[in-house]
Amino acid sequence: MLNAYAILKKVREEKPLIHHITNWVTIYDCASIVRAFGALPVMAHAAEEVEEMASIASALVLNIGTLTPTLVESMLRAGKAANKKKIPVILDAVGVGATKLRTESALRIIREVKLAVIKGNSAEIGVLAGVKASVRGVEAAGLQGNPIEVALRLAHKTHTTVALTGKQDVITDGKKTMLCNNGHAMMGCLVGTGCMAASVIAAFCAVEGDPVKASTAALSCFGIAGELAARKARGPGTFKERLYDSVYNLDEKTVRRMQNVDEV
Amino acid sequence: MLNAYAILKKVREEKPLIHHITNWVTIYDCASIVRAFGALPVMAHAAEEVEEMASIASALVLNIGTLTPTLVESMLRAGKAANKKKIPVILDAVGVGATKLRTESALRIIREVKLAVIKGNSAEIGVLAGVKASVRGVEAAGLQGNPIEVALRLAHKTHTTVALTGKQDVITDGKKTMLCNNGHAMMGCLVGTGCMAASVIAAFCAVEGDPVKASTAALSCFGIAGELAARKARGPGTFKERLYDSVYNLDEKTVRRMQNVDEV
Amino acid sequence: MLNAYAILKKVREEKPLIHHITNWVTIYDCASIVRAFGALPVMAHAAEEVEEMASIASALVLNIGTLTPTLVESMLRAGKAANKKKIPVILDAVGVGATKLRTESALRIIREVKLAVIKGNSAEIGVLAGVKASVRGVEAAGLQGNPIEVALRLAHKTHTTVALTGKQDVITDGKKTMLCNNGHAMMGCLVGTGCMAASVIAAFCAVEGDPVKASTAALSCFGIAGELAARKARGPGTFKERLYDSVYNLDEKTVRRMQNVDEV
Repeated sequence: MLNAYAILKKVREEKPLIHHITNWVTIYDCASIVRAFGALPVMAHAAEEVEEMASIASALVLNIGTLTPTLVESMLRAGKAANKKKIPVILDAVGVGATKLRTESALRIIREVKLAVIKGNSAEIGVLAGVKASVRGVEAAGLQGNPIEVALRLAHKTHTTVALTGKQDVITDGKKTMLCNNGHAMMGCLVGTGCMAASVIAAFCAVEGDPVKASTAALSCFGIAGELAARKARGPGTFKERLYDSVYNLDEKTVRRMQNVDEV
Repeated sequence: MLNAYAILKKVREEKPLIHHITNWVTIYDCASIVRAFGALPVMAHAAEEVEEMASIASALVLNIGTLTPTLVESMLRAGKAANKKKIPVILDAVGVGATKLRTESALRIIREVKLAVIKGNSAEIGVLAGVKASVRGVEAAGLQGNPIEVALRLAHKTHTTVALTGKQDVITDGKKTMLCNNGHAMMGCLVGTGCMAASVIAAFCAVEGDPVKASTAALSCFGIAGELAARKARGPGTFKERLYDSVYNLDEKTVRRMQNVDEV
Repeated sequence: MLNAYAILKKVREEKPLIHHITNWVTIYDCASIVRAFGALPVMAHAAEEVEEMASIASALVLNIGTLTPTLVESMLRAGKAANKKKIPVILDAVGVGATKLRTESALRIIREVKLAVIKGNSAEIGVLAGVKASVRGVEAAGLQGNPIEVALRLAHKTHTTVALTGKQDVITDGKKTMLCNNGHAMMGCLVGTGCMAASVIAAFCAVEGDPVKASTAALSCFGIAGELAARKARGPGTFKERLYDSVYNLDEKTVRRMQNVDEV
């Protein structure tokens, strides 16, 4: 049985450094959520320093939300440096399927970097798995097949843990599959929760060697905070404020009571 | 008579995709406000993908708040791709008049892209209209002439709808002119409300073919949310939170009662 | 005796324009805090416009939080333009010591630009002073020697005012040294407060010619707002909202009562 709180506790105790090469839209919130969870974020994207920064980090997030070819080069460099040191690398495949640049860059990163987790919404994971899927900007707009099969297909194809986020999150390494039902519809109304989820996954992967357990615990804890935040939120403004407070205050009792995870 | 709520309703129903090439300061808030209004934001600036992204969008925002020559090239590419598909393009002329790069880039975009709306504060619009105006950083600091005449002058010169924002917003295509008196002084104390206004205009232009009506409805709805947010705000922190909540909760009754728009 | 409120009052009355070349993580919050303090922020980083923008500003912030070699070139250009006009330049040495690029870039800026203030945490200042110090990402993780001596050493070495931030802030030009005990532990839990502090220092330097007084007053006022914000905060979400409201509402009575500054 997954003990999400135990992994959260390790994040808070070890305060791992999470290096991000990410997009310019949600960069602040990625850093903030990592900090609210008790880890230390650092953002650095210059080709001249990413290898050095990745090498001292405990996990690396590659988020292609506002990618450029230059940024992708930095991601490859950082990813390879992280691989050398066995530091887990998390790819957030933002907008894959919307443009050729995104799809090809994600596929190139998957080929050239050994990833711990590929994270995306159902359509992004679908596109990477070679399934018919439609992406509208950075939103999932359609998927042929069911999310569990699609996630399994990409996991088998890439020998990597896949975290497919949605109303129900599917996390699988091709052998073990976990489903997380935590979260709240308000999270979909707030820009950046998808990117934040990838950053939280990275923080959990920094302290837990099994990427399936780490990703599931991360999505469960983040989702629980979302459920708590939604309770008295009057809109995305109050929801966001409460989301940060809820993450910061997550305690063992609450996480144990609210954790909603199944292994299939 | 303008029915601002009817256009807002269409935004919520159609959830248009709004592609932004924008600045790094307010990029998150531009995305967030679009989402709070019920539309879908996407930010993408790499020359390699902007034509593809603009082509699948329902409106395009070009905001020169932290421009570089490379970014301006992406804006021109995206703008021309949007023109081919008849997708409305909104220019936010941030800081025009403060530096040569800003003024010349805005003028070049106006020459090379068919715009639906040029949006700016009184001084920015003044500079583009060829009137004496002074800009301090990104703030209007002086204008020779009255805002209505200045907006008309630019509209005539460019054959484009102009949205001049200020205490009273002036929206004109040179024939029809609307004045919007919604809004609150606190909006001027919050960084990003100007940029957000341009993004909201884009979301409304995506569902309403008349740019004057769309822009006026957008500024009225955003302004009403600002008035509501200011009621119990204790400063820019609470104001911002309430602004998002108010946008999210705008209902027909409130918009009808508070809409403060004149046609001249 | 330092009168922090008197300098704050001047910021509010003169509304100085504060030009930033800064990082993509906290760029919005740097602008927002400057605005909440009553000054006007402007962010501009293109080599083609930074000299022009710096020349019309009242202070310039160079923050290397997500630096690239191109951005450093812009910083040098802007810094030299500011020097010509005697506009104070503040360097925020974010992450110095974490990578070679950061350390070398900061040292180059210190060599080529006449700075009013070098701001950093204890480890960043330690690295620049040539003392053994360890930086973890952008966090201070260790320092050999006491902060006052380290700050003095860098001030003597560079003939510049040094603002070393921490639980106790040390501000010194090598002759006069001030200690500021305002602030609250919650500020360390919020991403961006370090960067914001540098921006506030710049706003205060824009209206007060003595960088030691200006920096101390800035850190005291910002710290007082932090203490007020922490009172009823339930986590980083509510803390951030209250921090902005507290800054906006700081009054003479409160600042006088809470100012906690010593001259040594």
